[in-house]
Amino acid sequence: MKNYHLTPEQFREEGKKIIDWIADYYENIEKYPVLSQVEPGEIKASLPEQPPQKGEPFSQIMHDLDEKIMSGITHWQSPNFYGYFPSNTSFPSILGDLVSSGLGVQGMIWATSPAATELETRVLDWLAEMMDMPEKFKSTSTGGGVIQDTASTSALTAVIAARERATKYESNKTGVRQKLVAYVSSQTHSSLEKAIKMAGIGSENLRMIDVDDQFAMRPEMLQKQIQEDKKNGLLPFFVCATIGTTSSTAMDPVREIGEICRAENCWLHVDAAMAGTAMACPEFRHLKDGVELADSYCFNPHKWMFTNLDCDVFWVANRNELINTFSILPEYLKNKATETGAVFDYRDWHVQLGRRFRSLKLWFVIRHYGAEGLQFHIRKHVEMAQNFASWVRESDDFEIVVEPQINLVCFRHKSDDDFNMKLMNTVNETGKAFFTHTKLNNRVVLRMSIGQTHTEERHVKETWQLIKATAEHLLKNRKAKN
Amino acid sequence: MKNYHLTPEQFREEGKKIIDWIADYYENIEKYPVLSQVEPGEIKASLPEQPPQKGEPFSQIMHDLDEKIMSGITHWQSPNFYGYFPSNTSFPSILGDLVSSGLGVQGMIWATSPAATELETRVLDWLAEMMDMPEKFKSTSTGGGVIQDTASTSALTAVIAARERATKYESNKTGVRQKLVAYVSSQTHSSLEKAIKMAGIGSENLRMIDVDDQFAMRPEMLQKQIQEDKKNGLLPFFVCATIGTTSSTAMDPVREIGEICRAENCWLHVDAAMAGTAMACPEFRHLKDGVELADSYCFNPHKWMFTNLDCDVFWVANRNELINTFSILPEYLKNKATETGAVFDYRDWHVQLGRRFRSLKLWFVIRHYGAEGLQFHIRKHVEMAQNFASWVRESDDFEIVVEPQINLVCFRHKSDDDFNMKLMNTVNETGKAFFTHTKLNNRVVLRMSIGQTHTEERHVKETWQLIKATAEHLLKNRKAKN
Repeated sequence: MKNYHLTPEQFREEGKKIIDWIADYYENIEKYPVLSQVEPGEIKASLPEQPPQKGEPFSQIMHDLDEKIMSGITHWQSPNFYGYFPSNTSFPSILGDLVSSGLGVQGMIWATSPAATELETRVLDWLAEMMDMPEKFKSTSTGGGVIQDTASTSALTAVIAARERATKYESNKTGVRQKLVAYVSSQTHSSLEKAIKMAGIGSENLRMIDVDDQFAMRPEMLQKQIQEDKKNGLLPFFVCATIGTTSSTAMDPVREIGEICRAENCWLHVDAAMAGTAMACPEFRHLKDGVELADSYCFNPHKWMFTNLDCDVFWVANRNELINTFSILPEYLKNKATETGAVFDYRDWHVQLGRRFRSLKLWFVIRHYGAEGLQFHIRKHVEMAQNFASWVRESDDFEIVVEPQINLVCFRHKSDDDFNMKLMNTVNETGKAFFTHTKLNNRVVLRMSIGQTHTEERHVKETWQLIKATAEHLLKNRKAKN
Repeated sequence: MKNYHLTPEQFREEGKKIIDWIADYYENIEKYPVLSQVEPGEIKASLPEQPPQKGEPFSQIMHDLDEKIMSGITHWQSPNFYGYFPSNTSFPSILGDLVSSGLGVQGMIWATSPAATELETRVLDWLAEMMDMPEKFKSTSTGGGVIQDTASTSALTAVIAARERATKYESNKTGVRQKLVAYVSSQTHSSLEKAIKMAGIGSENLRMIDVDDQFAMRPEMLQKQIQEDKKNGLLPFFVCATIGTTSSTAMDPVREIGEICRAENCWLHVDAAMAGTAMACPEFRHLKDGVELADSYCFNPHKWMFTNLDCDVFWVANRNELINTFSILPEYLKNKATETGAVFDYRDWHVQLGRRFRSLKLWFVIRHYGAEGLQFHIRKHVEMAQNFASWVRESDDFEIVVEPQINLVCFRHKSDDDFNMKLMNTVNETGKAFFTHTKLNNRVVLRMSIGQTHTEERHVKETWQLIKATAEHLLKNRKAKN
């Protein structure tokens, strides 16, 4: 009887073709323009306006993937992708994710798949160990880790847990009634402002503390602002310190900020979304000095640790503060294991109830590479960034804007802002490489973020040659016009 | 040189083995106990306490998957899984998800992969068409759809957007200062209460409206409560109506509730997380009568539409209300396409910034099955549930608690609560089937939720025989003891 499903045999056949399709993709990835060249609306217009009434052959779907979708892809996995921040994946991660999709478990509570919970707990304890994190972040102590989807969600989770601790869990009941105030730096990721808004605190009650010439938060300014706010009857409750800001990988002084937080009874959240991966190498661990003063900490294996989106690791020092904030137990989820308190139910650790088997891909990555393999690639990326920086320094026309601490180089052509934007757009439009910009001290800065899985020395070198040649060409044109 | 990566050739080999592994899993899935039989801590204890220093062979990872992880899986994809609600997947979905993992794009804004945005927009317009949703939910009108991870996140998104509309976008600035009040029924999913807490409204300001004998919200009680709250100087701002509650698939009267919301200027969110899939069939569309009065609506293809977690479809009537609430535009994300306003940037439609290529698996599912294939399976599931209900009615020892409207049967043994819990636990411990309970009017009710991809008539029949035989056996034992 026709039942519309693929049979297991058809799945074997189509699945293996897709495995080959992905391998082919990586073998040919340098042939695609890194930045998609389509115009707004072009992809949508290529797709039928009406949904299919009847099912279509699998070959047709794959054909349309090639013919209609691929031109609209910006190739984050290209070795010539240097935009924003890395979002690198790896073959082991893809395969771990495939197993997760295949099993299709819903791990909202321990009982609905004990392995989904316990593997996550174990793997996050492993990472805490691998990265020399404080004992209190481990499940064997007072804290523990949970995989969130993104650092934005971790920020929201931290803000809400901090709000509840500060108001003795009253805000959850009465709404936000106290005059809470939070602190970030002017360089902190925008997701913190978004979290403060979502949590009902209000952006007026978020202070953006000044930064120093390295774009790191100035602790004395934080201290001053907290005093002023207290004088005005406000209740300081939350500070976010960043290890590696998005714009320039600036490093906030976690220890000094943490000591202020201790004294002022503020929740300290540390956002190490991208740079956190570097903590796998001992030589970068000074960047997290003081992290034992943090109440929560997050970093994204889905940025620089070869693991597919979504995978943000969120550790807390005291898991009860999280559970007291987010727990809700309706009758239909009651079960023996939860009642004994012997297990973690991760739905009480975050916004969502439903959750897939989130840790499998991370487990595959860590076991495949081992600490040693991860360190190897982190060091390679940092080395390539440092090399790039040295070429910039050696050139007459370009300059370094911030000394690169790890894998991001902030530089600019010595010409004006317009020229830098024009240079970036011209390079990006060639499709041969892709990088992005930011503004620091109100000036356009070009960002070369090095961290894709398959980026090698030759890619970085060729991209530098391309940037230099493009700049020379544009300068010549400009002079010809004048 | 050793670079620790899998080569494309190794990926082909290991990937194809995993495809076979998944096919084998589905061919043998009935041999596993549906509910995992492990004890708390058992899986964790089987895994090394220390992370691997050196990478391990892929074969070892797969070996440990079989030997250490599989016993801790509760098999949501088993045809004998009738717990909670379905979380069904399908081979096309698994393959669509695999392509998404392989491409590894980060679709936070249009420019970072135009296809990730535009395919999502198109597919959600398709679904609106397929399900006869109001025009305003389409991107071609004032609204549009976005894929959220879960219905919990949709609820939070709706509550926050409603909060902002009600306070003229002041709460985002000042924090929650007005005395807002929200309304759900006593049967509404707990995620709404969680959302109200997270958004800084406070659970004291959430009213749980009484339900009728079918567990549907009583609109006259809603009206009365709103009047009373207004008299007390509160500002009613949000109502959630449910199409298919979690406990019993109760259907709130959306039209009557919607008319009250219109008159009282409240945001109406409709939560159709599980039952929403039924709207693919014309004969169930009366259940959504009045949905054109809604401001937002969500349903989960990851529950009953053969699509892997995470996949929650969230439609709004007015996308500007969403964007005005959630938009933040830092310099490093500025780009030409966004500035022209010609594109959607989905990071402004939800909590997260980063997002994978979320629509691919849904596109694979819709194209593979077509509207016709989806309807076929929805109707099969409903028919099986109705058959199960008829067997319950025919038996002397069991009774139907709520007349099943679609695919959930709420029933109980005519004995007491303890007996029903004992019966359920005994059946679940056999590993042959898995179902769960709830409470309605303070009595234990057993729930038979039918919606797994591979559930056939024979599975449902055998499970009913097992439940009956187990009940007889337990009764006999009880009598023997007395």
